[in-house]
Amino acid sequence: MAADIGLFEAIYSQRAIRKLKPDPVSDDLVHKLIEAATKAPSGGNSQSWAFVVIRDGSTKEKIAEWYLDAWNKTYVAGTDGGKNLPDQIKRVYGAADHLARNMKDVPVMILVCGRNAPPAGSEHGGGFYGSLFPAVQNLLLAARGLGLGASLTTLHKLHDQELKDLLDIPGNVETVALIPIGHPIGKYGPTTRRPVEEVTHQERWDSAKD
Amino acid sequence: MAADIGLFEAIYSQRAIRKLKPDPVSDDLVHKLIEAATKAPSGGNSQSWAFVVIRDGSTKEKIAEWYLDAWNKTYVAGTDGGKNLPDQIKRVYGAADHLARNMKDVPVMILVCGRNAPPAGSEHGGGFYGSLFPAVQNLLLAARGLGLGASLTTLHKLHDQELKDLLDIPGNVETVALIPIGHPIGKYGPTTRRPVEEVTHQERWDSAKD
Repeated sequence: MAADIGLFEAIYSQRAIRKLKPDPVSDDLVHKLIEAATKAPSGGNSQSWAFVVIRDGSTKEKIAEWYLDAWNKTYVAGTDGGKNLPDQIKRVYGAADHLARNMKDVPVMILVCGRNAPPAGSEHGGGFYGSLFPAVQNLLLAARGLGLGASLTTLHKLHDQELKDLLDIPGNVETVALIPIGHPIGKYGPTTRRPVEEVTHQERWDSAKD
Repeated sequence: MAADIGLFEAIYSQRAIRKLKPDPVSDDLVHKLIEAATKAPSGGNSQSWAFVVIRDGSTKEKIAEWYLDAWNKTYVAGTDGGKNLPDQIKRVYGAADHLARNMKDVPVMILVCGRNAPPAGSEHGGGFYGSLFPAVQNLLLAARGLGLGASLTTLHKLHDQELKDLLDIPGNVETVALIPIGHPIGKYGPTTRRPVEEVTHQERWDSAKD
């Protein structure tokens, strides 16, 4: 394992890395990513997470097909292929488009799932997701720390049932995030974010910041 | 600011710290926590997060009252005051009970909110929460890194509308997590988690792990 980088260095330089080398990602690295995920907070220590590690070529090919379809329907159609986007968003769009068109070639995907999912539509307040996305974030930070590229995607939800059927995922398990992982092409952060003052309200909501 | 601790050191020793000293938490530390939160992934870079920083005594008193009520209804009633719990859970229960009874004395609370919340019951797939709980996790890891104690709570949801009214939170903003923060009494992790092998499935769901 690489030397441990600083916590804040990792947080401040983490970004979605969507262009990945075809080189394999070792089992040891995948193990480390998942172990880091399991150290995240878990409501009532329920540890409702489960991780499906996907390397098989034909499985990735099916998932890539659904992912590209979802990408086309959700983003390409609405932006005329990205042509109508502001310049600063075009680069991100380009990388996301690259990922969507090359999903089958990512070395490994980790599908993060949640057991004991509440029935659809009954979820109020995020209790279920609140015990899963912190694990996802640990996994992404760990990827940054280990020098890997990764990004948080949820577009697979447009073909959720087909994906569940393909992977034998039971009915009471929800797919939460699909994380394509590989050695990165390109650099880590920083990301562009609004300053703290603009998103922070003192004591009560300040409607001037709406 | 304290020297940057290692990423994996932080991840592996983060735990809910529910016993907090009354000593104040500086504005600089709160700023750093929120800044770290805003570096988390955000779908489409929407940055839908907002943070309400609460230090006011009477506001904390009201929130503490609702929190204790929710704690009593959700946990105390079901466990006969914790007496029926297995030994290893009793310690966590005791700390959570302590927090519930001392919420008004925590130095600062950060209420993490999400803008542009989908209508209740329409949320499928966690897209909304998936852009907020990673920020919550960054905030919690940053607290660990800065030597603060914090925990992820959602019990306020049982008095959600009253809390929104108290804090002037608009209708299209959802409260996501209430994080009590202070200087810690007691130690950081490690946490007890099932081994990676038990929660990891290779290529497809392994029903032997159900």
